[in-house]
Amino acid sequence: MTQDGVDALDELRVGLRDFAAERDWGQFHTPKNLAMALAGEVGELLEIFQWLTPEQAAEVMGSGRADDVRDELADVVIYLVRLADVLGVDLLEVAHAKLARNHDRFPPADVRGRADGPPAGA
Amino acid sequence: MTQDGVDALDELRVGLRDFAAERDWGQFHTPKNLAMALAGEVGELLEIFQWLTPEQAAEVMGSGRADDVRDELADVVIYLVRLADVLGVDLLEVAHAKLARNHDRFPPADVRGRADGPPAGA
Amino acid sequence: MTQDGVDALDELRVGLRDFAAERDWGQFHTPKNLAMALAGEVGELLEIFQWLTPEQAAEVMGSGRADDVRDELADVVIYLVRLADVLGVDLLEVAHAKLARNHDRFPPADVRGRADGPPAGA
Amino acid sequence: MTQDGVDALDELRVGLRDFAAERDWGQFHTPKNLAMALAGEVGELLEIFQWLTPEQAAEVMGSGRADDVRDELADVVIYLVRLADVLGVDLLEVAHAKLARNHDRFPPADVRGRADGPPAGA
Repeated sequence: MTQDGVDALDELRVGLRDFAAERDWGQFHTPKNLAMALAGEVGELLEIFQWLTPEQAAEVMGSGRADDVRDELADVVIYLVRLADVLGVDLLEVAHAKLARNHDRFPPADVRGRADGPPAGA
Repeated sequence: MTQDGVDALDELRVGLRDFAAERDWGQFHTPKNLAMALAGEVGELLEIFQWLTPEQAAEVMGSGRADDVRDELADVVIYLVRLADVLGVDLLEVAHAKLARNHDRFPPADVRGRADGPPAGA
Repeated sequence: MTQDGVDALDELRVGLRDFAAERDWGQFHTPKNLAMALAGEVGELLEIFQWLTPEQAAEVMGSGRADDVRDELADVVIYLVRLADVLGVDLLEVAHAKLARNHDRFPPADVRGRADGPPAGA
Repeated sequence: MTQDGVDALDELRVGLRDFAAERDWGQFHTPKNLAMALAGEVGELLEIFQWLTPEQAAEVMGSGRADDVRDELADVVIYLVRLADVLGVDLLEVAHAKLARNHDRFPPADVRGRADGPPAGA
């Protein structure tokens, strides 16, 4: 992909790195700690949805919980990008590679409409 | 940010949307289901690290578990991007907005070297 | 509660402690590691349910996934009991204390039928 | 195991069932919802530990975070017991059965001191 194409995520990656450095928080940003923090934020995201009916969940972005959803998604992105940066992993590269592999693993004819295999491509 | 700057993540977003549509898997991609899938993949990521010492974790990308780390990070990205797409949330926009708010919430002079407040900016 | 009343859970607690000791695995059973392992197993439990419809989920113990559910619930119990043992926390004591507090926090008249407050008592 | 041996956990199980019934919260206690709630509480537990050093984590029950640890462990127990009750699974029975299987899967001579296989027995 083009150099431009990675700028948006890179901007965030560098911004988070600088944010941690300015506060001398790098000492806390070990892979295990960041993985735990990521799990904690995903837990907070789940908590928004846990008692909602499927219908309420589908309409959540038009409800009073919309800002909470945005806030928790932001926190998940932040820890994921920080963790990947610390590990030296290019998130978009590995995701695209996995999607390509999933095209081979899950031929449409074999899996159409069935959830036996992971229905996202993961 | 520029139109170019969002292409890389957009490419993945659209690719995942098409992948699901081709397999008639959209029926499974409700917000609650995708949030659960995201939590499942983060769990798989944690399992790679859970018994590693801090030193082993710091060196994981040079170990035999490197491909597993890439694979699980890919799965986490995939479900996060899918979930955000279904909810209509721009991940980079909300993350940048949160980081900006965190600059105000955590002035360096107040928090330098201390983990009392979230040390990533989340 | 009576001494008898804690035997069942105690039996498991001691059994897990011995199991770890016999294998010299205590070195891995730090609080952070066990918390990560607990999150990993809860993630595996969620993965069984993530694509099921509410109806399929309600019937899961009569389906081909029943043994998987039992297996993952077992793993969750195992790590929870191990973690509590390492921390010196009595799980039933803290749970009963929390339920008592929740009786005060959530008077039925205030919350009947509404999910605004945590609907389990947590 | 004796009838007495299951009373302590049973007492909690029935208490949680009654608590939900009194508040007409059973409608929210579907297996998927309870699994999500369980993941949310485990996330809250992880958040207490995420920035602690291994030494601080080992001493957490003597620190200002001790009550938070007890509170989150209580919440995890509560949702786990509620989920198992809704599914009709006996937690101690499945855990003991799994531990027995793990004695066969992980002979001490094969695994002593090594974390390759799950070091809890899960």
